[in-house]
Amino acid sequence: MAAQVNDGTDREASAPPVIVLVETQMGENIGAAARAMANFGLKDLRLVKPRDGWPNDKARAAASRGDAIIDEVRLFDTLEAAIADLELVYATTARPHDIAKEVESPAVAAVEMAAAARAGARTGVVFGREKWGLTSDEVGLCDRICTVPVDPAFASLNVGQAVILVAYEWRRLVLGDAAWTPFVEKERSPQASKGDVFAFFAHLESALDKVEFFRPAHKRDHMIRNLRQIFQKARLSEQEVRTLRGMVAALEGRPTRLDLARFQEMRDAAERERGVRNRDEE
Amino acid sequence: MAAQVNDGTDREASAPPVIVLVETQMGENIGAAARAMANFGLKDLRLVKPRDGWPNDKARAAASRGDAIIDEVRLFDTLEAAIADLELVYATTARPHDIAKEVESPAVAAVEMAAAARAGARTGVVFGREKWGLTSDEVGLCDRICTVPVDPAFASLNVGQAVILVAYEWRRLVLGDAAWTPFVEKERSPQASKGDVFAFFAHLESALDKVEFFRPAHKRDHMIRNLRQIFQKARLSEQEVRTLRGMVAALEGRPTRLDLARFQEMRDAAERERGVRNRDEE
Repeated sequence: MAAQVNDGTDREASAPPVIVLVETQMGENIGAAARAMANFGLKDLRLVKPRDGWPNDKARAAASRGDAIIDEVRLFDTLEAAIADLELVYATTARPHDIAKEVESPAVAAVEMAAAARAGARTGVVFGREKWGLTSDEVGLCDRICTVPVDPAFASLNVGQAVILVAYEWRRLVLGDAAWTPFVEKERSPQASKGDVFAFFAHLESALDKVEFFRPAHKRDHMIRNLRQIFQKARLSEQEVRTLRGMVAALEGRPTRLDLARFQEMRDAAERERGVRNRDEE
Repeated sequence: MAAQVNDGTDREASAPPVIVLVETQMGENIGAAARAMANFGLKDLRLVKPRDGWPNDKARAAASRGDAIIDEVRLFDTLEAAIADLELVYATTARPHDIAKEVESPAVAAVEMAAAARAGARTGVVFGREKWGLTSDEVGLCDRICTVPVDPAFASLNVGQAVILVAYEWRRLVLGDAAWTPFVEKERSPQASKGDVFAFFAHLESALDKVEFFRPAHKRDHMIRNLRQIFQKARLSEQEVRTLRGMVAALEGRPTRLDLARFQEMRDAAERERGVRNRDEE
């Protein structure tokens, strides 16, 4: 068989893992899992014998905007049946089982599931009961073990918390950029260029020279470096540089842009007024 | 001031961020936050005017093994007071606020907080109310915005889910190894060397040659490559190689190790028996 060429175009299309919850006791946890899945792009939720039956109002309430996932939940009598159509399946466990299987973090599992999905495989992650997790027989049905890198002294995540971390790692991987955010800084004017910032420094320093701020004289260079550092750290926008220059002009007693604009407005108003009066007099 | 030298020895000692929950309505969410913190090495939980007062039984119940964090919770009347002793503070928001602040993912915030902590700064992350988050004034008190990389179409995490992701990214960074797991494969015998595996192949293939498995002859090489691939993929342990060789020997009708061990046992038992009889006869 020839190896297939991967040109990277299928990256976004990789099918996300199926989430399988075995004998979950609390509907709230099923809902929390659905909510986590919806936020991170997972879709297929399967339940093996949920304690309180199905449908479950508490699950729907806790799912929040994940109700599309709740609508499509599939029920199974056994874990075998729930994962029969998958090719690579992870059992999540918080403690070692007496079974020789590779143990992987959610980050590594996400990488492997994405690679498998890109090659056409369907993947899944299985989560056990709130009180005691998965049986060794259930773990034995899976290919590998996935476990969250908790502090061993406190290992105690609930099933909703474990699902969100697995789903989050999937999305982190699919995004391919740990710095990605769903929105960016609001209405920020463009970053000021270094030239704009240097012109502001010249303005500020000349204003401060006039009021003999830099004393004693031999400390002038040092003081200027410290002042400049304050504004460099702020990574000013163009608008912020204009604001600061207006502020310095105001403190200097020079007319500000606002003063000039108001003056212009007053003059315009006066001229209009004069125009109106002239028309009245005609 | 001379720049400080960082020799890497303080890595583990970096103080984790403080978690601040503002006017949280449900005790369960405070408890879930404490539970998440305990699992990922965070310790300092502060509450600004929790709706149902403090202490709160539901918070303690939901904290599970995070009760040490619940015991040390500090209460504040205002966000200003809660973060007054910190130097770098992130506001978590799910939507843009009308405010020009850098927006960062939990992964980037964790990197920055660790860098700040290494330089001696105390850091914190602030989480808002379940229904409507933080006010713009509250966001304004913080240095930067942190937001989780959710699917924008479904952005809807609860406060407990947001806390666990921030705490998880902190631990992921402190561990410095995305593949770290709190336990490893259980009682696995050492990985078999390639030599062990090749010896097993030779054994298997000679047994299959004897029963004329490789037919037609011109497909022999291809069939052998496929068979070998099955066992290479399994990444066999030494014990697994022994098990497979015993299995092949049994199928061949050769005496297995177990047969030999049983034979030895039977012979030993017979000899003991004879010895006892000899003594009886003396």
